[in-house]
Amino acid sequence: MFLADSRTSAGADQINTCSKLRVFKTGNRFVVLLTSGNLATTQGVVSRIERDIRENVHGSLYSMQTLDEAAEYVGGISIDEQNRHADKRIEKDFQPEATFILGGQIESDQPSMLQIYPEGNFIRASQAMPFLQIGEVKYGRPILDRVVDGETSLQSAVMCGLVSMDSTMRSNATVGPPIEYMVYVKNTYYASVHRSLAEDDEYLLDLRRTWAANLHEAFDKLPEAPGLDDLQFLPNIDLLHR
Amino acid sequence: MFLADSRTSAGADQINTCSKLRVFKTGNRFVVLLTSGNLATTQGVVSRIERDIRENVHGSLYSMQTLDEAAEYVGGISIDEQNRHADKRIEKDFQPEATFILGGQIESDQPSMLQIYPEGNFIRASQAMPFLQIGEVKYGRPILDRVVDGETSLQSAVMCGLVSMDSTMRSNATVGPPIEYMVYVKNTYYASVHRSLAEDDEYLLDLRRTWAANLHEAFDKLPEAPGLDDLQFLPNIDLLHR
Repeated sequence: MFLADSRTSAGADQINTCSKLRVFKTGNRFVVLLTSGNLATTQGVVSRIERDIRENVHGSLYSMQTLDEAAEYVGGISIDEQNRHADKRIEKDFQPEATFILGGQIESDQPSMLQIYPEGNFIRASQAMPFLQIGEVKYGRPILDRVVDGETSLQSAVMCGLVSMDSTMRSNATVGPPIEYMVYVKNTYYASVHRSLAEDDEYLLDLRRTWAANLHEAFDKLPEAPGLDDLQFLPNIDLLHR
Repeated sequence: MFLADSRTSAGADQINTCSKLRVFKTGNRFVVLLTSGNLATTQGVVSRIERDIRENVHGSLYSMQTLDEAAEYVGGISIDEQNRHADKRIEKDFQPEATFILGGQIESDQPSMLQIYPEGNFIRASQAMPFLQIGEVKYGRPILDRVVDGETSLQSAVMCGLVSMDSTMRSNATVGPPIEYMVYVKNTYYASVHRSLAEDDEYLLDLRRTWAANLHEAFDKLPEAPGLDDLQFLPNIDLLHR
């Protein structure tokens, strides 16, 4: 299962919507690429992948035999793109780094999911590490850590991904809808499910409302902290300058 | 209300426990300092504050008339400490930055809470921004964003702070118990509550267990994501290389 938001930004005054989930698909080959980081770098990488496919270059995404090879290739292109602009750096703080998730299945190779670092190296998801995250990962991580393990159902995985993304959107303005999710099933070589949920999508709104209400309920049922008996009717804000 | 963990680290092989909450208190003056960032810098800042008090320097924490002045002073010391080591930088990646929260009340000045940035400037908590966070802020932020506002009770603020810290501890090994919390009530000039909860504290364990259970319950009551009917019994992990 793959899930991505669609907001790209180059500073707070230049926010756009652009799919961060791309599929490269032909015959018995289904490769999904999720992107994060510097938008110029990720677009440069995607253009280069597409050009290599078009020009039928030896070692394009359509000729490789394994996802490992594909990750090696994407990592290499990413380094090239970063260096091309790094050389021309004017601002000291310019950050050309990009991170990718590559997944799917090539021919009879095992389906898998890999995370490609800005340095070009990569790691693989596994039973012990059943999800990968790139981009603004921290706000949405606690719920994934609690819910997702190697036994999680597809339905729960999608719901948990959406809840995680919702928490992230609340805290970081550079993450925003539509939220896309895609499901790939082994040996099918097509997307079993591909949905894009817009900001006003009814399910997304319902999920958000229900989660907020359930979370408040979960919080209200917690045991009270010790030592506050004499003070419990005091609003916290009394400490603050009004 | 102030809340802090107690774990300090200089790399994963040098983890220690050390209070990050310090009180400077005399007469009608109650000042709390929370620290985060480079441990050498924060310890240097605290030593300098203590020395200035001991030597009765004009403009020490015991002579200032407002918390704003105090924040200006701590910000200045922090810059001094950072520069002292920055000049001797050997490693390019050396990060001497530190961030502080300063709060409490000085004489008849309004009680307040300020966040001091590594650059020495600071912001103030307010009704619209009823909490400040420093250090590893992102994992624990979503629950604070949802629960805490200007009307939150002291009891809820403490519980929410503890839940937020618990989420952070699960995701980041450099955050750990004991968890301290302190409550200051306007015009009292002493700590109304000061508790330190150790790793095996019964309340902390109960809170953690209850929150995990309530959160799972909250998640289980969410509406199911659309488009997955045919696939709902498929474990997500079937995509992955086992």
